[in-house]
Amino acid sequence: MKKLNIGLFGFGVVGEGIYKVLEDKPKLNASIKKIVIKDKDKFRNAPNELFSTNPDDILDDDEINVVVELISDSDAAYSIIKKAFIKHKHVVSANKKLIAEHHLELIKLQKENDVSFLYEASVCGSVPIIRNLEEYFDNDLLNYVFGIVNGTTNYILTKMANANESYQDALKSAQKNGFAEADPTADVEGFDAAHKLSIITLHAFGTKIEIADVIRKGITSLKTKDFEYAREKGYTIKLIANSKIINKNGDLNSTVLPTFVKLDKTIALVNNEYNGVLIGSSLSDEQFLYGNGAGRFPTASAVLSDISALQYDYEYSIRKKSDKILKINESGKLKVYLGYKTEVSGIQNFFEDIEERYQSNSYNHIIGTISIHQLKNVNLLNDKRLSLIVFE
Amino acid sequence: MKKLNIGLFGFGVVGEGIYKVLEDKPKLNASIKKIVIKDKDKFRNAPNELFSTNPDDILDDDEINVVVELISDSDAAYSIIKKAFIKHKHVVSANKKLIAEHHLELIKLQKENDVSFLYEASVCGSVPIIRNLEEYFDNDLLNYVFGIVNGTTNYILTKMANANESYQDALKSAQKNGFAEADPTADVEGFDAAHKLSIITLHAFGTKIEIADVIRKGITSLKTKDFEYAREKGYTIKLIANSKIINKNGDLNSTVLPTFVKLDKTIALVNNEYNGVLIGSSLSDEQFLYGNGAGRFPTASAVLSDISALQYDYEYSIRKKSDKILKINESGKLKVYLGYKTEVSGIQNFFEDIEERYQSNSYNHIIGTISIHQLKNVNLLNDKRLSLIVFE
Repeated sequence: MKKLNIGLFGFGVVGEGIYKVLEDKPKLNASIKKIVIKDKDKFRNAPNELFSTNPDDILDDDEINVVVELISDSDAAYSIIKKAFIKHKHVVSANKKLIAEHHLELIKLQKENDVSFLYEASVCGSVPIIRNLEEYFDNDLLNYVFGIVNGTTNYILTKMANANESYQDALKSAQKNGFAEADPTADVEGFDAAHKLSIITLHAFGTKIEIADVIRKGITSLKTKDFEYAREKGYTIKLIANSKIINKNGDLNSTVLPTFVKLDKTIALVNNEYNGVLIGSSLSDEQFLYGNGAGRFPTASAVLSDISALQYDYEYSIRKKSDKILKINESGKLKVYLGYKTEVSGIQNFFEDIEERYQSNSYNHIIGTISIHQLKNVNLLNDKRLSLIVFE
Repeated sequence: MKKLNIGLFGFGVVGEGIYKVLEDKPKLNASIKKIVIKDKDKFRNAPNELFSTNPDDILDDDEINVVVELISDSDAAYSIIKKAFIKHKHVVSANKKLIAEHHLELIKLQKENDVSFLYEASVCGSVPIIRNLEEYFDNDLLNYVFGIVNGTTNYILTKMANANESYQDALKSAQKNGFAEADPTADVEGFDAAHKLSIITLHAFGTKIEIADVIRKGITSLKTKDFEYAREKGYTIKLIANSKIINKNGDLNSTVLPTFVKLDKTIALVNNEYNGVLIGSSLSDEQFLYGNGAGRFPTASAVLSDISALQYDYEYSIRKKSDKILKINESGKLKVYLGYKTEVSGIQNFFEDIEERYQSNSYNHIIGTISIHQLKNVNLLNDKRLSLIVFE
């Protein structure tokens, strides 16, 4: 078991937690040699001599063999990680945005420099989804990955479903309990879920999807009336990230959309800030992974697992990696519910056919079939008046 | 990807299912060359020339590089597997009893002959528990594996808890629905769970436990009155297999016991024939694996995943394997509920202290602390009059 000398970027709650665990557990044979932070004058719960504001104090130190990157600025993180690879240091990161945006480039650079790049903490907190996907093989014939990958929105949706709260009240409750940030855009608009789906999809199918190609709508337009409809019909509403193979060529569709889920389905058991992911393959039964998806401790625990794995020279094999870029197949169709308070003119034109239409003084909805092509229509996805919910 | 020529032992529902999938999916690059069965005259859904009653038709055929063993006779399976290793064939098996009884010897033989030995199907049907444990490392500091690993008993207990059925009625329902065998002893007395726990424990902790050292009681003594008590207190009753580290020396306690589980705990979500396992470590959050635990399809799917993995030369690394034999540490104590209809003389002597004692005309119970040493007392574990349930 080799000794890990760690250079840590960022000393927020996760960084401090990791520092403490490594101090407490000498058995891990890993210690932090230097911590690079932005603000040197802030009080820190660690010896002063560990800190620096100069990234090169880590990157140019040949004794440091592992970089743990935990900063929020993804542009700065990008250049730190690239430089770490070139300096032949292993990297552990939790930065999903950065990884989703530069995934193939970073993997290439990592391989060229023969180091490990582990990022379990970037997806679903403490749920070991990437390590699990690594245990599948090309010929396991994976069909889909379907799940709740964002704890913030799941917390809000659980409040809306179970306590009949409005979106705004549920958001406030999430912020008060530390499950949503002051600016919640990345979570509630589904960007965070799309980043995670992109990372998951590469490990599941060997295919890189661009964030812009993910059909994505967040949860900000959902109304209590939508949840009333869901309850009447035995559903709940979840923000589901889903990549699935839609034809024999292996074409994928990737979506992050509010989804009606039957209450007796496994995924409906996933409540509050928890995450849960189903993995479907032709050869084996559907697998379900479940765990704590948001907050400090799950992130720290995933980072610690990655650090621990480095001592055994663990690296992702990405057995299915291909350089194929996903081309969205627009021939598919989805069953969609659109809910709205006041009549939206021309709304029926989005549908190929309409199955159910309900109009009343207080709320209206239409259910019918919409093509993937139409679903990419910005008027449909961006219209704040419309609750858009697909059926599982 | 190498071509797999498979020799199949056994052609029951699982074997036939695997044969069909391999025929249907040429992409898998695996085909069955020979099938050894006991009764040559039975009608089989496969070409006649595939069948033989002579094991050597597989074992002596150098073109066959994989043996898939699916027979119920564990003594016959033992000699087949040993001979297959010596002939340098990879082996896939679903035979938990055989593996639990000869685990270390088979692993040694496998390594000596440089072949793979995969047996995901032997534990928890389609839930990839072994592959998951393989992704943990020594320094991940696993603390416990805690779960429902037997679908038959979980189906019976779910009926008893939710439909208020007696043990006998619930057992009949399980048999009628194909979830229990005509002779259910191995399942309902907890032997099957103990075998699986032994296999899991080796992969989790590197420690082999002998079946006789597992503190085991099945579900046959449980009464509807016990479930009434559980409901009143917000519990359900599950048969829990549990290996956990109890001190700094890494000593383990391994138990298969009826257990009160709070209804809001993750493990209480596991109902009917499903299995669910929690993995706890010092470094990361508790992980939860869940899936279909009994029946033909889950077993076939796990066997197919193993076959698929062989094409990539996958083998268990058993990173934590030690040859240490578990010594049960008898100094531990458990909180135990004993339920009984008619007074059992001296029952209070099992307890170190008594927390609650309830007596009535129809049913009685005592709750208190019992030492592990006392729990190994055959009078306590084997007395059919006593419902023994531990608290989580």
